[in-house]
Amino acid sequence: MYSTGFMNCSPDIKKYFSPEESQRLATELGRCLANYYTECQAKSGRTVPPLTPNAYIQMADEAMSLGGQDSAKPSALRFAELATMALTYGHHLHDPRYMGHQVPPVVPASALFDVLGRAANQGAAVFEMAPFGTAVEKAVVNALGELIGWAPGTFAGIGTHGGTLANVTALLAARNIRYGNSWTDGVAAKGGLKPAIMTSSDSHYCIARACGILGIGTAQLIKVPIDKEHRMDLAQARELLRTSRDQGLDVFAIVGSACTTPTGSFDDLAGIARIAQEHKIWFHVDGAHGASFLFSEKHRHLVAGIEHADSITWDAHKMLFVPALCTYLFYKNARHSWEAFAQDAPYLFDPNDPTGLAEFDGGLRTFECTKGTLSLGLWGIWSLYGKEFIASLIDRAMASTKKMFELVQNAPDFEVAHVPQCNILCFRHVPANSNLDSQGLSNLQQKIRTQIVNDGNWYITGTRLDGSYWLRVTVINPLTTEEHLAGLLDAIRQTKN
Amino acid sequence: MYSTGFMNCSPDIKKYFSPEESQRLATELGRCLANYYTECQAKSGRTVPPLTPNAYIQMADEAMSLGGQDSAKPSALRFAELATMALTYGHHLHDPRYMGHQVPPVVPASALFDVLGRAANQGAAVFEMAPFGTAVEKAVVNALGELIGWAPGTFAGIGTHGGTLANVTALLAARNIRYGNSWTDGVAAKGGLKPAIMTSSDSHYCIARACGILGIGTAQLIKVPIDKEHRMDLAQARELLRTSRDQGLDVFAIVGSACTTPTGSFDDLAGIARIAQEHKIWFHVDGAHGASFLFSEKHRHLVAGIEHADSITWDAHKMLFVPALCTYLFYKNARHSWEAFAQDAPYLFDPNDPTGLAEFDGGLRTFECTKGTLSLGLWGIWSLYGKEFIASLIDRAMASTKKMFELVQNAPDFEVAHVPQCNILCFRHVPANSNLDSQGLSNLQQKIRTQIVNDGNWYITGTRLDGSYWLRVTVINPLTTEEHLAGLLDAIRQTKN
Repeated sequence: MYSTGFMNCSPDIKKYFSPEESQRLATELGRCLANYYTECQAKSGRTVPPLTPNAYIQMADEAMSLGGQDSAKPSALRFAELATMALTYGHHLHDPRYMGHQVPPVVPASALFDVLGRAANQGAAVFEMAPFGTAVEKAVVNALGELIGWAPGTFAGIGTHGGTLANVTALLAARNIRYGNSWTDGVAAKGGLKPAIMTSSDSHYCIARACGILGIGTAQLIKVPIDKEHRMDLAQARELLRTSRDQGLDVFAIVGSACTTPTGSFDDLAGIARIAQEHKIWFHVDGAHGASFLFSEKHRHLVAGIEHADSITWDAHKMLFVPALCTYLFYKNARHSWEAFAQDAPYLFDPNDPTGLAEFDGGLRTFECTKGTLSLGLWGIWSLYGKEFIASLIDRAMASTKKMFELVQNAPDFEVAHVPQCNILCFRHVPANSNLDSQGLSNLQQKIRTQIVNDGNWYITGTRLDGSYWLRVTVINPLTTEEHLAGLLDAIRQTKN
Repeated sequence: MYSTGFMNCSPDIKKYFSPEESQRLATELGRCLANYYTECQAKSGRTVPPLTPNAYIQMADEAMSLGGQDSAKPSALRFAELATMALTYGHHLHDPRYMGHQVPPVVPASALFDVLGRAANQGAAVFEMAPFGTAVEKAVVNALGELIGWAPGTFAGIGTHGGTLANVTALLAARNIRYGNSWTDGVAAKGGLKPAIMTSSDSHYCIARACGILGIGTAQLIKVPIDKEHRMDLAQARELLRTSRDQGLDVFAIVGSACTTPTGSFDDLAGIARIAQEHKIWFHVDGAHGASFLFSEKHRHLVAGIEHADSITWDAHKMLFVPALCTYLFYKNARHSWEAFAQDAPYLFDPNDPTGLAEFDGGLRTFECTKGTLSLGLWGIWSLYGKEFIASLIDRAMASTKKMFELVQNAPDFEVAHVPQCNILCFRHVPANSNLDSQGLSNLQQKIRTQIVNDGNWYITGTRLDGSYWLRVTVINPLTTEEHLAGLLDAIRQTKN
């Protein structure tokens, strides 16, 4: 039944788990990353490789089919080939001509700290499975909570995999608190009123998604119109709340955006807080992008009032320049963090554990049962380079965006959609003598965006505002200079449409 | 408004984003990892460091407060100090005396492949944001789907952050398909019957959690008793289904475990498939741990029938030896993958996109909007070392567990709880002349487990079976030999209780 060789590990296993192998490959990793960053910064290559999904799938597939076939080739050499393939055909966020999504070129060190938790495979949902990884999360949460302005020991924060998950978890907690039996009995109308959530029409699509997931129904999401500055119109919010019961709705939560995705606009959080308090409803802030401005003395006014929120979503993988995914969900009242889930897993969690370790087990408060140590990247760059360095990246992104706004505004053949509140700006190209109507301009921007991305040298996105398509940049790369900003406008002018 | 120095990046930003910095730190990373793996394999240190949460939090906090303070010290040196701290005070899964949770000591290369996606910060929910990362996920999904036995092009698979998320997503799709309006209108009883899910009493706690989250309610989870082999009792399942409508329940999904967490037992998947077909209900397999046995010619019989499932959860971060989190959710019918979520995010997804890229955007089919490139680790070790190597790790874990079972069974002062179906085994120590009753034995095992973990040299877990506490091992480290297995039993004998 047991092979006589059982005591001896196979040579392959010994070799591939050997300390020497990991050191060899890590050295290659360093070489490959240095080459990659050098190429990105030289801005000689493409920001986005040609978009040919099937070609890449075939490439990835062929690599797998060759796995273990060529044992004569040193594994470090093969590793370097594969790593170079993965980097070359990726999206080059570290190219200063990248001005696309709300995903940053990370501080390179953050990824190297991040790998520690993976190489040692720490499971951060249970203290015992990741003692230091769990402690790092607590230390980071304490530091971020202090920036929010909350007193130590009064609030709770948990790391989770992404802003959507954090938003859904917060609204699940709010649902369970308002409807005490919804976890066990299911969601149901109460006194003839259906549970409902209020947010602005420009809030992230995952708020509607939360309604669909949590059994509330997307039809029970009240979308308050936005004002001229793309913020939730608070007068209309009050009015909609006033009439909601007549519509058969029981609004139990209101979600403020800090900021919105299309235009980077910040809702008036202090104003929403007052409404929430008056109506005794849960106040959640989706601060996925914007909570990070708390790091900046110059810009933290953008999220004034965030400290009144019952819960806050904060993506470190956006404006804190660490790899995706690294999100924090905060609860002003520490006890509320236990309300989203209520479970029993005896082999893992023992709430009566005499050692007192249960309070450090995050798994009863997150979707994830096994969870990666997602805080090592942020903890690492904070500990290595300091908090002020992170703040300087935020301030630089803001300054660059203002510069971009100035350039666009001063260019006769461009038009801005809004004054940027943070580092997101929507604008469009209006060629001289084009005589295009609104629909024509909309079509033109879409063509420009497609061509820019297909050309591959620059990277921008687009979005619809009031039905029209606009070009959209998130200025987020600290290596982007005025030269690049002006260069983008020229590149847009030169597109053939 | 704009500082004159705007064009020039600060020296710190230039330095910390420089290719040289990343290469220096990666070289240190290699050194630190080699030291760590050497120490683990020497089994001279502790498997788990002393469990003192507050001390570690203080350590992590102090590191942050020193961040950027000592600029005279080379950052590579400081990086090495911080990395060593994180590794030393972590849980040492690579120590062959680790036989704990269903989380493996990873193939070291997998973590180094994984970091590529993070260092370049690829967002794998949208093809354009991670061209190669997205393609890698498709290639891996195609290869795994082939192992399930499904024809290319007929099924769909998506990567997601963890088994809980995959299980919840699958049941959300099943809910939306059965109750067409539940996404928009919310969950409600239909014809007087409440939506309900059926699973075994030993299924993972996240199945109950899914009921709580999705608005169904945990009270609507029918838990079928297990048989003597800890599998779902199918005769009772049929009976409970027969009477469910009289109980006011409309069972829309049945969840099989492959395998269960407490004992690693595999439900009769082919048998459950027949029941699901007869009753026209969704058949989901939670194969978080066990689906990986499809890699092994010798052991794939354990999951016979899995190909009949409508959806399957498969954690690569368990028996495929890559870092957490890396989970795949499969749908037998490709179209079903679009049913869990139905959204509109114009700045990201354009279903009418003439380029045809929309089909490669995973974000409309996962909880995550921004998603890490979680497939690079598995793709990497498959491409570097080959599929057979991964299979050999699985086979070795199985052989080791059988050896452990033999040792425990042959030891007069130990007792097994069950014949192991895979690499999980529950057993207990029954000292000679102890005369302990069931409760006394239960208390003894709990004391043993606590002492073993506090001593720190070995690492095991425990679980409750029929109310009694048993010791539990997951034999998962390929470097664990018979010597270690026997050594654990001796260590247990030597605990003072």
